[in-house]
Amino acid sequence: MKIVIVGGVAGGASAAARARRLCESAQIVIFERGPDVSFANCGLPYYLGGEITERNKLLVVTPERLRQRLNLDVRVRSSVEAIDRARKVVRVRDLASGREYEESYDKLILAPGAAPLRPPLPGIDLPGVFTLRNLNDTDDIKSRLDAGVREAVVIGAGFIGLELVENLVRRGVATTVVELQDQVLPPFDKEMTRPLTLELARRGVTLLLGDSATGFAATSKGLDVSLKSGKHLPAQLVIVGVGVRPENKLAVDAGLHVGPRGGIKVNAQMQTSDPDIYAVGDAVEVRDVVTGEATQVPLAGPANRQGRLAADHIFGRQVRYRGTQGTAIVRVFSKTAALTGASEKALRRAQVPYRKVYIHPTHHAGYYPGAEAMTLKLLFDPVSGRILGAQAVGGAGVDKRIDVVAVAIQAGMTVFDLEEMELAYAPQFGSAKDPINMAGFVAAGLLRGDHPQLHVDELATSGDPPPLLLDVRTRQEFEAGHVPGAINLPIDDLRQRLGELPTDRPIVVYCQVGQRGYLATRILLQAGFRAKNLGGGYKTWELYRN
Amino acid sequence: MKIVIVGGVAGGASAAARARRLCESAQIVIFERGPDVSFANCGLPYYLGGEITERNKLLVVTPERLRQRLNLDVRVRSSVEAIDRARKVVRVRDLASGREYEESYDKLILAPGAAPLRPPLPGIDLPGVFTLRNLNDTDDIKSRLDAGVREAVVIGAGFIGLELVENLVRRGVATTVVELQDQVLPPFDKEMTRPLTLELARRGVTLLLGDSATGFAATSKGLDVSLKSGKHLPAQLVIVGVGVRPENKLAVDAGLHVGPRGGIKVNAQMQTSDPDIYAVGDAVEVRDVVTGEATQVPLAGPANRQGRLAADHIFGRQVRYRGTQGTAIVRVFSKTAALTGASEKALRRAQVPYRKVYIHPTHHAGYYPGAEAMTLKLLFDPVSGRILGAQAVGGAGVDKRIDVVAVAIQAGMTVFDLEEMELAYAPQFGSAKDPINMAGFVAAGLLRGDHPQLHVDELATSGDPPPLLLDVRTRQEFEAGHVPGAINLPIDDLRQRLGELPTDRPIVVYCQVGQRGYLATRILLQAGFRAKNLGGGYKTWELYRN
Repeated sequence: MKIVIVGGVAGGASAAARARRLCESAQIVIFERGPDVSFANCGLPYYLGGEITERNKLLVVTPERLRQRLNLDVRVRSSVEAIDRARKVVRVRDLASGREYEESYDKLILAPGAAPLRPPLPGIDLPGVFTLRNLNDTDDIKSRLDAGVREAVVIGAGFIGLELVENLVRRGVATTVVELQDQVLPPFDKEMTRPLTLELARRGVTLLLGDSATGFAATSKGLDVSLKSGKHLPAQLVIVGVGVRPENKLAVDAGLHVGPRGGIKVNAQMQTSDPDIYAVGDAVEVRDVVTGEATQVPLAGPANRQGRLAADHIFGRQVRYRGTQGTAIVRVFSKTAALTGASEKALRRAQVPYRKVYIHPTHHAGYYPGAEAMTLKLLFDPVSGRILGAQAVGGAGVDKRIDVVAVAIQAGMTVFDLEEMELAYAPQFGSAKDPINMAGFVAAGLLRGDHPQLHVDELATSGDPPPLLLDVRTRQEFEAGHVPGAINLPIDDLRQRLGELPTDRPIVVYCQVGQRGYLATRILLQAGFRAKNLGGGYKTWELYRN
Repeated sequence: MKIVIVGGVAGGASAAARARRLCESAQIVIFERGPDVSFANCGLPYYLGGEITERNKLLVVTPERLRQRLNLDVRVRSSVEAIDRARKVVRVRDLASGREYEESYDKLILAPGAAPLRPPLPGIDLPGVFTLRNLNDTDDIKSRLDAGVREAVVIGAGFIGLELVENLVRRGVATTVVELQDQVLPPFDKEMTRPLTLELARRGVTLLLGDSATGFAATSKGLDVSLKSGKHLPAQLVIVGVGVRPENKLAVDAGLHVGPRGGIKVNAQMQTSDPDIYAVGDAVEVRDVVTGEATQVPLAGPANRQGRLAADHIFGRQVRYRGTQGTAIVRVFSKTAALTGASEKALRRAQVPYRKVYIHPTHHAGYYPGAEAMTLKLLFDPVSGRILGAQAVGGAGVDKRIDVVAVAIQAGMTVFDLEEMELAYAPQFGSAKDPINMAGFVAAGLLRGDHPQLHVDELATSGDPPPLLLDVRTRQEFEAGHVPGAINLPIDDLRQRLGELPTDRPIVVYCQVGQRGYLATRILLQAGFRAKNLGGGYKTWELYRN
């Protein structure tokens, strides 16, 4: 068996290692265009920022190590230029010597990854304008930073964009980030990104939403970035991080099927339309496990799993890739944001019915010092309660809650299962009723009809007559800020003052996070009022502020 | 509907709050023997140690607040002395006035909790010898500490015992802990507690295992604690934390069924043998979800859930308590230990077949600074791979992995599902192959037959002829410490030197954590040797050292 692998970073390296463990006698050849295999691409921003101090830490494994330990034939700086499917050979170009040669395969695994988009703007190729993909790019950016950069512009506020921003600020660079959409981190729902927007402002980052670069020009002081809005930004460093596109040229040229967004089409065994050719990682189209839609998800975890499965299948194992959930996480200064499954906007786009709840717990028991605030949004099926997605933003403990929901989605669990979860509790780690349990209580209460809710984004259009907005917090809380038009009636007085409330119009109750509002709603419903609780209370209302 | 609740801490307070939300018109009476309801009992050690500085932080909610907000009739310092099931009344004693009176009920909920065991030893009632259950105890211990304690003895190295030890050391007290068993934290398997034993020693704690107190005597300097071993320990403070027993007297006197270990018997709706009487929390017998055995699990999370379910059932809801997993966590100085599901010894006791794996990952990507070591032990069904239990010890990230496994157990997932889990990865939070995935790979490889393992505790009895013990680490690692009798053949030389190995006896391979050993096992098996990998490698071997 001779296996040829194109690309030696995440999926390709995983496939090679797995193949070797399964079969000592296989001939395994890896072609990698760059000089490095299996490097820590998720660490590049932190090497730029200086948290990771040694460059060689980014080299998870060297070509030499792969040869020695796994008996792999690793050929770096080798570009696979074409596939001849009929003859089962690839044409390879040695980038050092320029020599071209053919290599035959029994099975071919394509793991070419995805390349950063470089929009064809004037000046995109000027010195000082970068994209970030590999160690070469990192070295170039680092040289520029080390030479002295006062002002930087990051184009694109996605995951990598924001990680770069954090690290540029860490180095004392005045940083502006320009994002075409009206929010940072487009995979998230907009309201969930508000804490990040505030955090960026607090750290002195200039955030320009709904704007985009139209060109770059060299000036005496470095570069001038012109924006669609007409603004001009001076900079000595520009990093463009506006997304990636699958490296599909090899596949397309070979006549393999490719999806509408360029991802190489594969079956659940990671085979392309040619069963002797597999494809894995950022270059392939995957199935979203929640919406069922075809999508592209450039993430390291799925790439590694796919590589492993491809090798398994080559050696006759029964395997099935289950699809991708899109579980992802990013730290932005002292905030963490994470998500798994579908976002609200993705569900809308896919026309999947859903309901949602928001909670605002602390990450561990409030009585123990250091409890950090968190907002958790949960999306679920309106009938079965099956969990469709979750997003969380806050500090410590965000990663844990999203991982718990990620497992729940994988298991097909419902919000009723969240109520029952028995998670580890000591005051340093959680609460006797963990945020996950709380989300389950609120969501299950909604589905059982105990806890009717109105959401902030439904307030403006909620009916005729318009509801009375009832703030059941204390007078002090009310006076510190409230939803316009609300009246104040503290929860502890509510039972005594029910007579003051109108019976001829609906009532929307709210408190700070939703808990007192829930009790007030229960009291009002049982007293015959038409009441709903504003989902997630005043804190959620604030997330929707512009 | 008139509901009477005996006990107002976790389960009782949860039942009362839930009942009120479900029904505004119900009359709800809570009798609590102590002066406080719903206090943070898990926070008491940290108030003693000074991390929690304000006593009122421990009062999660006051009786006054429960009256005002939830319209509950809360009567503290009120002891329920007897139940007359025929007349459906309880006899109550007001501890302040001594007055006794009767209170009728439609439904009665028993949430009396569990009391610390006070073994009937000579001197157990001397001043300075304490148990810790409530704020009163805490105040007494704190007074003693504030008056000056140089030496303290903690009897019992369970969860609360070790939390107390940490907090006594924090206050500069020379602390000895005495434990009857030959390990700390008896719910864990012994080898998993070794890092905690080392940590206690590193912090200057004297740990006496396999010993117990036989009596206490007053001396001029405070107390003398005599031990079974003949040792004598001077102390000015002794805290006895050797377990709890369910407060079942009320139930027993009323003729309700009680299990062999004293837990009040309840059905899945939390009803006792009298359907109008419910029981919840630390006083009840629960079903272990993994072994199916009846057990007692004094934990706050289950108590709260049970209280909620009892109230739901009273108001006609269909509910079912699913049993208890025993998910628990404890911090011991800079170490964290957590577990969920069954331990290996519990599985043996219950004669449940199982297999196990150990892994020793870091809590996040190794290339990012601050990665902390962790040991994870996973127990699973030998045929289906269903997950039966997990234990982890380490630093950051232990809580997350145990919570993930807790959900997997709840969902009935297998080790093959762990392989596929898509968890949140950025270098600060995990790895592209998370420790959970790794545990899944190792366990699934074992079940698929790709990765035969021998465990450290099987080494001594592993066959005739005895296996060759092959250390495939580097020469430097080997020389720094190895398993007695092992020979060294570094993994990178193995393929070239296969001819040196015997074909007439089995080979047990090991490396540092099991990963190189796995590859070596694969190489050897494919070359025709009879090879197994030592599960978890040298690090696991070290856990079994005494």
